[in-house]
Amino acid sequence: MAPLKVTIVGSGNWGSAIARIVGATTKQNPGEFDSTVKMWVFEEMIDGRKLSEIINETHENVKYLPGKILPDNVVAVPDLLESCQDANVLIFVVPHQFVGRICSTLKGNLKADGVQAISLIKGVSVRKEGGLKLISEEIEEALGLDCSVLMGANLAPEVAADNFCEATIGCKQRKDQGPILKKLFHTPHFRINVVEDAHTVELCGALKNIVACAAGFSDGLGYGDNTKAAIIRLGLMEMTKFVEHYYPGSNLETFFESCGVADLITTCYGGRNRKVCEAFVKAGGKPLAEIEKELLNGQSAQGPLTAEEVYLMMEKQGGLHDKFPLFTAVHKICSGKVEPTGLIDCLRNHPEHMRDF
Amino acid sequence: MAPLKVTIVGSGNWGSAIARIVGATTKQNPGEFDSTVKMWVFEEMIDGRKLSEIINETHENVKYLPGKILPDNVVAVPDLLESCQDANVLIFVVPHQFVGRICSTLKGNLKADGVQAISLIKGVSVRKEGGLKLISEEIEEALGLDCSVLMGANLAPEVAADNFCEATIGCKQRKDQGPILKKLFHTPHFRINVVEDAHTVELCGALKNIVACAAGFSDGLGYGDNTKAAIIRLGLMEMTKFVEHYYPGSNLETFFESCGVADLITTCYGGRNRKVCEAFVKAGGKPLAEIEKELLNGQSAQGPLTAEEVYLMMEKQGGLHDKFPLFTAVHKICSGKVEPTGLIDCLRNHPEHMRDF
Repeated sequence: MAPLKVTIVGSGNWGSAIARIVGATTKQNPGEFDSTVKMWVFEEMIDGRKLSEIINETHENVKYLPGKILPDNVVAVPDLLESCQDANVLIFVVPHQFVGRICSTLKGNLKADGVQAISLIKGVSVRKEGGLKLISEEIEEALGLDCSVLMGANLAPEVAADNFCEATIGCKQRKDQGPILKKLFHTPHFRINVVEDAHTVELCGALKNIVACAAGFSDGLGYGDNTKAAIIRLGLMEMTKFVEHYYPGSNLETFFESCGVADLITTCYGGRNRKVCEAFVKAGGKPLAEIEKELLNGQSAQGPLTAEEVYLMMEKQGGLHDKFPLFTAVHKICSGKVEPTGLIDCLRNHPEHMRDF
Repeated sequence: MAPLKVTIVGSGNWGSAIARIVGATTKQNPGEFDSTVKMWVFEEMIDGRKLSEIINETHENVKYLPGKILPDNVVAVPDLLESCQDANVLIFVVPHQFVGRICSTLKGNLKADGVQAISLIKGVSVRKEGGLKLISEEIEEALGLDCSVLMGANLAPEVAADNFCEATIGCKQRKDQGPILKKLFHTPHFRINVVEDAHTVELCGALKNIVACAAGFSDGLGYGDNTKAAIIRLGLMEMTKFVEHYYPGSNLETFFESCGVADLITTCYGGRNRKVCEAFVKAGGKPLAEIEKELLNGQSAQGPLTAEEVYLMMEKQGGLHDKFPLFTAVHKICSGKVEPTGLIDCLRNHPEHMRDF
């Protein structure tokens, strides 16, 4: 088999951190991978020069990952089609809202076969007809190929600093595609497990942000460690029930992977959803959007958006809000329908506490 | 059935916090419980007065839970036998090292039947013939009665402040004894789940302290959130494997209860094992025992002790250290055989990262 050509679709903070890993592993495994890794760069001008040119000359993404050198086999390509048309493996790592447009451009312009994708994007959307649409499903449906996912407790700056950490790859064709994907991402610092249960892996990445909002409210209200631990745990239980509801047959063990409990912990202690929601409580009455603007430099936090999407989806199905009181409370608090102080009352009669004997 | 008489064996910080809960629930359920709750107090003199007398006059444990009022149906009894001889439910909440002596005194002096115990004590010991001995087993074997356990993310001062939290009761006779135990501990602030898998509940309470040591080393070494999350997760995986090894048939879902992931998180972020181990790394070379003396006011941290017991037990069985590299590393670091900086190298080839396809 010819060595596989790998393209990274995206070159932000996380994309650049991943480029350091993938640049190294492709070089180390010449039998499996072509040594050139193309990285699609959304072109911008930096001090009068093109970002793609700067990256190719200095091997540094001066805008999104300054101070870290990319392997010299990572080549920045500003043209999306050119970066992807020969690829066997497409690594998607762009903001969620770009996925649709990128897929439209790529559709019909990829190699005819032997192409697979892997998404590192966290988020979820609602189908027009109701129900959940994962980003991997969006990519699969648009491009007609298999899309795996990679999620985990992976703050990009720490990954770029070669701190020891773990990640989970969810790959429906684990036996067939798992070994090559593991080889592409597994390094001495970045330890990979591959599981078959890809939907669970991906949903963990989206749903944990809702739980982090609740953790932030708890911090803002000045509650202690016990309460925060209870909130994180109840959130985790709702994550397991939610996944089981929408993708029956999911594997409980997947929640023990890095994408599950580890990413949840990191997000509920660090993470910007937690931070924004803590500030929201402390600001007492200021709308969430304003707090986000102040704290996130124009970006928006994923948690309140995901909470809203999940809320609307449950509303369509009817009767589900009682089963997910934490998810429901987060949306109601973010949207100003319930005071943050109401959080605990929403949890006191959680279905988790009402089990029969 | 006559109302059950409840005795709390112990009156430290945690025992007094629990007395506030049990005093309230017994009053609220006169059909099930006798309204008087005896609390065994190890007598000490406080400013020339007996602690038991102060408690019975002021309803405040001025030494171990100052500032919090105990319900007036909680009666301090300095004589151990007198406090326990009529009891139907014995709540054990004393330091581990007192359990043996207390049981010797009680043996043969309890009611002939209809007595059950529940232990709130965290720890584990090794049998002379090798193998594990849980504290509940120690109590069961000494007194010939069923002993359940209660564990969870429950820092005593926060429980005493009526902060919302959860706890898990492990009760082998869940159907028979579970409902009454839930009634005894469940309040609007202190939410109880009862599971059958009592061994797992109890072992979580002991083993999490080893993981907290590793989290402390990570903090002391200045590693970030990703690494700490990976350590906590790998620790959790070793907890599940350890329980499965010594008590086959344990239930994975139990690790999602408050006794599992929630208590683990609290202990790895707050908690004195984490604190001591962080300080140990930063002090560079000072023995752990000295750090404990400085930080814990004469008390010792449970984690290093449990790590040693677990290490010795695995040594007897042979070949187990490779399966539990984190537990093993914690003991080696605590005892000075490995430098703290060696922690990550011990984890890099964790069995969790070496799974086959």
